[in-house]
Order: sequence, then structure tokens, then C-alpha cells
Amino acid sequence: MKMNIKRGESNKKKKEAAPSVKIIPLGGLEQIGMNITAIEYEDTIVVIDCGLAFPEEDMLGIDLVIPDVSYLKDNIEKVKGLVVTHGHEDHIGAIPYVEKELNMPIYTTKLTMGLIENKLREHNLMNNVKRKVVKHGQTINLGAFRIEFIRSNHSIADSSGLAIYTPAGILVHTGDFKVDFTPVFGETIDLQRYAELGKKGVLALMADSTNVERPGFTPSEKTVGRTFDTLFAEHKKNRLIIATFASNVDRVQQIINSADKYGRKVVIEGRSMVNVISTASELGFIQIPDNTLIDIAQMKSYPDEQIVLITTGSQGENMAALSRIAANIHSKVSIKPGDTVIFSSSPIPGNEKAINKVINELEMKGANVIFQDTHVSGHACQEELKLIYALTKPQYAIPVHGEFRHLKRHSELAMEMGVAKENVQILNNGTVLELSTERARIAGRVTSQGILVDGLGVGDVGNIVLRDRQHLSQNGLIIVVVTLQKDGNYLVAGPDIVSRGFVYVRESENLMDECRDVVEDALYKCLNNNITDWGKIKTSIKDDLGDFLWKRTKRNPMILPIITEV
Amino acid sequence: MKMNIKRGESNKKKKEAAPSVKIIPLGGLEQIGMNITAIEYEDTIVVIDCGLAFPEEDMLGIDLVIPDVSYLKDNIEKVKGLVVTHGHEDHIGAIPYVEKELNMPIYTTKLTMGLIENKLREHNLMNNVKRKVVKHGQTINLGAFRIEFIRSNHSIADSSGLAIYTPAGILVHTGDFKVDFTPVFGETIDLQRYAELGKKGVLALMADSTNVERPGFTPSEKTVGRTFDTLFAEHKKNRLIIATFASNVDRVQQIINSADKYGRKVVIEGRSMVNVISTASELGFIQIPDNTLIDIAQMKSYPDEQIVLITTGSQGENMAALSRIAANIHSKVSIKPGDTVIFSSSPIPGNEKAINKVINELEMKGANVIFQDTHVSGHACQEELKLIYALTKPQYAIPVHGEFRHLKRHSELAMEMGVAKENVQILNNGTVLELSTERARIAGRVTSQGILVDGLGVGDVGNIVLRDRQHLSQNGLIIVVVTLQKDGNYLVAGPDIVSRGFVYVRESENLMDECRDVVEDALYKCLNNNITDWGKIKTSIKDDLGDFLWKRTKRNPMILPIITEV
Repeated sequence: MKMNIKRGESNKKKKEAAPSVKIIPLGGLEQIGMNITAIEYEDTIVVIDCGLAFPEEDMLGIDLVIPDVSYLKDNIEKVKGLVVTHGHEDHIGAIPYVEKELNMPIYTTKLTMGLIENKLREHNLMNNVKRKVVKHGQTINLGAFRIEFIRSNHSIADSSGLAIYTPAGILVHTGDFKVDFTPVFGETIDLQRYAELGKKGVLALMADSTNVERPGFTPSEKTVGRTFDTLFAEHKKNRLIIATFASNVDRVQQIINSADKYGRKVVIEGRSMVNVISTASELGFIQIPDNTLIDIAQMKSYPDEQIVLITTGSQGENMAALSRIAANIHSKVSIKPGDTVIFSSSPIPGNEKAINKVINELEMKGANVIFQDTHVSGHACQEELKLIYALTKPQYAIPVHGEFRHLKRHSELAMEMGVAKENVQILNNGTVLELSTERARIAGRVTSQGILVDGLGVGDVGNIVLRDRQHLSQNGLIIVVVTLQKDGNYLVAGPDIVSRGFVYVRESENLMDECRDVVEDALYKCLNNNITDWGKIKTSIKDDLGDFLWKRTKRNPMILPIITEV
Repeated sequence: MKMNIKRGESNKKKKEAAPSVKIIPLGGLEQIGMNITAIEYEDTIVVIDCGLAFPEEDMLGIDLVIPDVSYLKDNIEKVKGLVVTHGHEDHIGAIPYVEKELNMPIYTTKLTMGLIENKLREHNLMNNVKRKVVKHGQTINLGAFRIEFIRSNHSIADSSGLAIYTPAGILVHTGDFKVDFTPVFGETIDLQRYAELGKKGVLALMADSTNVERPGFTPSEKTVGRTFDTLFAEHKKNRLIIATFASNVDRVQQIINSADKYGRKVVIEGRSMVNVISTASELGFIQIPDNTLIDIAQMKSYPDEQIVLITTGSQGENMAALSRIAANIHSKVSIKPGDTVIFSSSPIPGNEKAINKVINELEMKGANVIFQDTHVSGHACQEELKLIYALTKPQYAIPVHGEFRHLKRHSELAMEMGVAKENVQILNNGTVLELSTERARIAGRVTSQGILVDGLGVGDVGNIVLRDRQHLSQNGLIIVVVTLQKDGNYLVAGPDIVSRGFVYVRESENLMDECRDVVEDALYKCLNNNITDWGKIKTSIKDDLGDFLWKRTKRNPMILPIITEV
């Protein structure tokens, strides 16, 4: 019996396992924000995109969030390069921070590289980082991989999908995309190439999940141009102010086209928009007729009906040009009755209130605000996603770019399109997915927390600091200063009470006097009991004063006892 | 010549001026929130509604905002009573606070009074405040006014419009309303009465502006009931959890109807919903079949498919039941794969991100979240508003209940419906509008700022405190403690540096050492120059340390120098 079993086992042919590739999201699958993914095979790692995220509401005082690239740093000898799909902040914003640590060569298309170079220049990194501009249709070799850039459509020009040829099979990454049959610049997404890849056999498809909850097909960017023409025709006597996303070059192109048609001069306002448009213009991604663009300072030389001002601030961002115009704190533009303000955008969730505020301010000053029908999304809806699945017919589906709810809907869509249930993989950040034609398995986890950037500080603000800011923001603070005699342990000065963000002190003098009494009692209780340990004295002050204030005010300020000894 | 002129003047018949009434919004016209309006004629003031507002994003730590009623207090002898249109927080929430100061008798319908009494009870005011329950169709006399309660439809039962008969003419106030031809409880809004009033002649119409941007007609509440039936039929094997507004009694009624039909027990969870539903049930505004309602503790005795849990938290409110369930910190309910969670609500602007967070958390735990087609608004769309204008044909239109952008759209609608341009009045809070059949004029301004409530404190948090909280929340603080020798003006102890919410100190010890050096330098610079004025020393420390930190960190913490003398 035993012999038989052994023989049976040894008879089984030891099948060579199919080669497998690792896919490791390092910051971008759980919530819209940072997009950075490592693709790994033996001694090759290639990084796709390197974005930043904007802080969540509870990240008080934080400017931005960048990915933690410890895993890449620990494996730096494997890292062959950074491949970038398009020039949006959530795909390129962290590049200067990450390049300071990793110094990877960058491969991307012309406009995307132009926007990245703006950032590298700001951070004085132009001479340190190798860069190579790639054309759509071109393929580059990086270690064990070949990577092909595929023409795509999105709300920023020159965006790409990727085919990554690995020993385990072909990975297709759509980047952020839509299918635009009549794009403003360039051509329709290269659907033929996706079909060819599908014929060859695609191991896994990583596709954009942003609009997966929306049925149908996203309208072409060109439809917005027709709306602009209508609006320009309807508002011939008014000054036009149009707010849109700084990076939407095609949108700006269409406004310029309408302006040209209706004889208006164009002013571009807002730092980020000026930067993007001048880069796009230098690189030939936008056509501005001669004598159309004027400086904001020249605006006053033209009558209102000959002006269109294109500006940032369509999301109600506090310091953006339009918000400053609405609040009457812009140095060069102020709203006059009759001005027509067009929001060529839709609110990103979370910005609704800020946008409302700006609209109210504009209308109070007499502006006529238009905020409908002048925007289309840059992301694929359900039918476009299905089209990509139908063309590529992937063995595995790895939904990317969306919150969990979007990734889940996308999983359902992938299954509808014929991907086996067990072959649909929703990956948390830091999860290492190992894929081969035979199986998919989670092969471990790597560090992937976001790193908080506050001013020049990268990573020096953590949970404790944020918790303190939260506490301070809700209830303010009370500082208790006490000076004790060395050894003698009696009170030399104080207690003094200083408060900030708690109550308006002038009207609460009695309360402050009572606080002083409470602290004095707590202090003498300690000293009389020969408690001289400062930690214990501080705790006693905190507890007694905290209890007193909660009873009196139902508030819970931060209490900071400070003891000095002389 | 002079004689002639004089004769000419005296010949003019001194026409008796038409009587005029004053309309004074005291908190609710500029933004959705507090609704409180005073109507005044000679020695009569009647107050309509008395709501609270929830704090804006920049009102850190504030619990709620109530109206400033100084004007009413100063004219207390004129105030004849408070008339309430319906039981929503933005119309009744400030009553206990205001009644402590004004002690006005309250007139309203049965359910509205029940909800007000819950509040009075909580604040121990039941014996102090006179109350009279009024029926629809009934008229009460208050000083120079007669006030008629008109049956209406809204997202809370027993809501009213008002006709206020004044010596200057009839004012019609719609309250918050929609036109529901097939309401779940009670009857259709009393359109005939609005028509009769129109025939008599309406001086001014004050109508709800919330949905004025939406074309068409708001669907009947009953349509939601049909959707519930479909969802109950489709999810026969799953536990159902339905989140909706605590005060929407008719919505809860419809869920209970479906539960009854499909053999499910109903659990109601969330303090505010339990309160509203038990009041509505006691007063006969909701019909709950015997043995349908069970306690949350009994839930475990029933299989999932026999349970529907109705809960608060449809707006993603931090501490509401559904948010606690989603975050796995609810003591009695936790999500299991297969649970179906229905959001029977639409996001109030500003809550989108919080709601998204709850949806993501629920789906990560395996729940199936449905957030479409299970809500209708309680407010009139454009065609309903036009209907009320067509019936009442007012001389003046005073749009109420909306942000400025809504009031402006409403003005345009009123003009379309035949109100003369100069007879449409958008009122800022505190504006006194004097109306007669002959003219409308702004007759002054009264105090009408919101008062901030933080814990037990009413009005003790103002702009300075909020500014400090804002500053602390963004950058944290640094406290510098210095002990000086009396007279001698030399350093006895310190400088000590304490920081909170600035940087993680253990990793920034060098920075803290450098701060100490900067402060010491600033201090000696003062002392060596015989500057002994504490104010000047503090300013010098603040400036030097502030400059140093900005250069080093690009951050701007609050700096608090504290000097002690021994």
C-alpha cells in the first residue's frame, strides 16, 4: 500500500508552474487619489503613475498626501522606471517627492512630460532625473517587460493606455479614459489595438472605475463646444467668465474657438491654468489664433462684450481666482451686474458647499451664473467599459481608480462581461497579487500608507498631531501656568490661566476666576499630601479642571498644565 | 408767485396713506437654516417659525446656531405669539432657547406641537410656555392679525401654510410645501383655499424656494411606497436596513406597510427617529399593525429575511445609528454579507463625502447598498410654485427658504407669473420691509446675526474664538514659557517650549532645540537693550520664532509666549 502510494505520487509529472507576475497597488485603489502601482517580475519592477491625493476632511492643516514608497526603496535595484499614463495631479503630483528618494527614469508622452517637467523644475530636479518622451504606438523595454503606449481619450490631452508584456502574459492598463469618437484634439482611442491585444490574449485588464455607476456612454468633449457657441450667441452683450479645470486643455481650446468666432479676446487667469496652457501651447496641444490672448491688465481697454475670462476655481477652491473674484478680493477683476459666469465643470463630491458659496456670492453681486450643460466627464461609463472588455477579453479583471463602491460595481460589470468570478480581484493598497495563467493569489502585503505633507514637512505630521489639531479645533485650549519653589514645593507664582479658542474671555472673567480656584485647590491637595511628582500634579490639575469645565460648559478643551521651578 | 405756489400745495388733497405691515426676516432668508420671521403692525408682532441652523464648515466646534431675537426682546410687549408651520428642526429647533427669553404662546397643529413639546420637556419648559393646538381651516386672533392655518403637504405630516390677515392686506406664507395629490397621510394641500384667497386679493406671497431650480413637479410620496414594495419583493432572502430622515413619518409608514405585506418585523433605531415615531404614533399620525414593531434586542430571535431595520444616518452623520453600524461600533447591529442597505434619502449638499464613506464601509463588509429611486423631495418644483402663484395672484412676491441663488431664481419665476419686477423683494436677514397696497420700502434694519451654541454656552463663542480654533486646527501651537527675575530682568528658568498639533516632537528634537535658541536670542536682545515691557518682549519672541519656523517649515503655528516673574 505504502509503496503504491509513493509510486502513484512519483508517477505524477511534475508540471512546470506557469510564470507569474506581481501587481502591487501602492496608493490608489481604495479611494480616488494617489495612483501608483508596481508591476514586478523577478528582478524587474516598473512603476505606473505616481500621483498625490488631497487631504481628507479630518486631516487638518495637511496640504497633500503622497504615497509611501518604502517597498520600492527597499528594492531599488529592481526598479527600472516610471511609466506615466497622463498628466493629472493624482497621477503625476507625487513625482518630485518620490524622485528625490528613488531617482527613476520617467517614460511618458510629450504633454504629460511637459507637465512633469514643470514640477521637476520647481523642485530643482531637472538635471537629476532621466526622462524619455514616448509616442503612442511605441514600445519600450524595461528589464523583463516591454511596455507599449496606446492612444487614449481623457479630459487631458495626450493620455495613454498601456500594454505591459510580461513573461506571465499581457497586462492591459487603461489609465483614466473615455471613448471619444470625435475628440477635440487628436484621434479616437486606439480601439483596434485593444482588439489586437485581445486576439493575442490578455492576462489581466486594469480599467478605470470612476463612472462605473453611470449607465450609457459619456458624451464627446465636442458637445460642450456646441453649448459654448450657443451661450456665446445668447450673451453677446455680457462679459463672460468661464471656470473650468486648469488641466482641461481641450475645454480651453473650445472656449478659445467660440471666442474667436464671436470676436472676443481671451484672458486666462489662475496660476495652474496659466502653467498648463502655456506648456500645452508650446508643445502644440492647443491652437490659439494670433491676437486672441490678452493679459489680464489689458482687459480694461476692451468693452465687456469683447472679453471672455477663463479661470480656475470651478470647484470653489478657497484661494482660486474665481473664489477671489466672487469674494471681491481679486486685485484685477470685480463682478459687475450683467456679468455671465459659466461653471464648465461638475462638482467633485465634497466640494458642493464651497461651490454654492461662490455661486451665491457671484449672484449677490449681480452676476448671472450658469452651471448646467457645459461639462462632460473624462471617464468611461458602463457601455464604454463593456466595449473595452469585449475587445480585450481578459482572463483576470483588476478594477482600478475608484472608491470601494466603484470597484465593487466594476467587479459585477466584469463578471457580466464574462470574467470568471474568482478571476475578479479588488485589491487593497499594499496587497501583492501574484498572477499567472493558472492562478491568482495574494502573495503578501507591503507598506502603503499615505504620507502627509504639511508645508515643507513630509511625514512629520502623524496621528497624534492630527488628533491634537482636531481636539484644538473643536474646543480650544486652556494653559495653566504654575511656578513652584524648588524643593520647598510651594507656589511662587500663578496659577495663571491662558485660553485660546475656548470662550471669549472678556465676557467670561468669572469663569476664568473659578478655573484659577479649581487649579489652586487641586495643587494644594497635592502639595499638602506631599505629592511632588510633576506628572501626578499635572494629571490632578487636568482632571479637576476638566471635570469642572465639563459640568459648567459641556465642553472639553485641551488642558495644558505647565510647571516651572525656581 | 409765492402765493400761487403755496395755494397749489394746499390744494393737493392729503390722501390718507394705505396701511402698511412690516415683514422682518430674523434668520432665515439668506441660507437654508434658521427660519424665523416677524410680522409687525403697530402694537402687534407675530413670529412665524423659530428654527435653528447647523454650523457652517468654518464654525469649528459649534453645535448649532440659533437666531438673535434682540429685536423681539426689545419689543416684547408687542409680541402676541409664535405661529409654527411644521415640525422640522430648521423651523422649531430654536424654540426652547428663544422661549427662555421671550416666553411667547405657541400656536400650531397637533403633530408639530407634539414635537415642540418633546423639546420643551427636555429643557424643563413645559409649565412655562402657553400652547394652543390649532386645526387646519381654523383661524386665530393675535392682536391686529387673524391667522388661518391652511392644510399643506411636505415631508413631515401635519404641516401648514398660513394666511395672515393684516390691516394692510392678506399675507400668504406657504411654509415648506409640495403639492401631493396622493399623500400617504391626510389630504392634498388645500388648493381651493389658496384660490379663494387669491380671489379676495393677496398682498404678498412668501413661498418656499428650495427646489425652484428644478423643472416640473415633485413626485408624490406614494411613488416611494411602490419602490419599497419592489425592493422587498426582490430581496426576500436578505436582511433589510433602510436609512431615512428621522422626521419623515410618511416614509416610515410606507416601510412599515411593505414590511407588513412581506411578513417582516420592524426595528426602529436612532434616538431622534424613535422620538418622532413614538410621538407620531401616540397622536395617530402613523398606523403600526400589532406585533410589527419589535425591540432591537429581540432582533436576534428572528431570521434575517424577517427583519427590516429603519434607522437614522442617511446623511452620513458621524454618530448616527447607520454610521456606527457601518464603522462596526454599534453595540447591537453589525453588517453581514448579504445585508441590503437602502438609502431612502438624497444627500443634502455638503454631506456627500460623509455618505460616500458610510457606503464604502458598508460595501467592504459585504452589504449591498441601494441609493437610487427611493426618495422624493418634500419641496415644490417649478410647476408647483407656478400653480400657487396662479391661484393666489399676489401683488408682491417675497421668496423665502433658500440660498441667495434660489431666491434669485424664484424672483424670476415670480416675474414670469406676472408679479411686477419692482414688487419682487429678496430680503436679507434683519431687513425691515414695509408693505402696503401702494408701495414696498425698506424701512430699516434690525440685529439678526446667528448666535453660536457650543455645549451649554449660548453666544460665548464669537469670531475671535473661531479664528483661534481655525488657526490651531491648521497649524497647532507652540507655547514658550520664560521665567524672569523681578526687577533684575534676567532669565531664571526656561525658555521651555511646549507644542501641540505642530510636529511629532520626538522626531523633531533638533527643531525644538533650535526654537529654544531663537527664543533665547530674542529675549537677550530685549534684555540687553533694557526692553522690559512684557508686551514688547512677547512680540519680539513671536516675531523671531514665527519667522524662523516659516523659513524652516513653511508653517505658521500659533505662538504663545508666557512670561512669569519671581
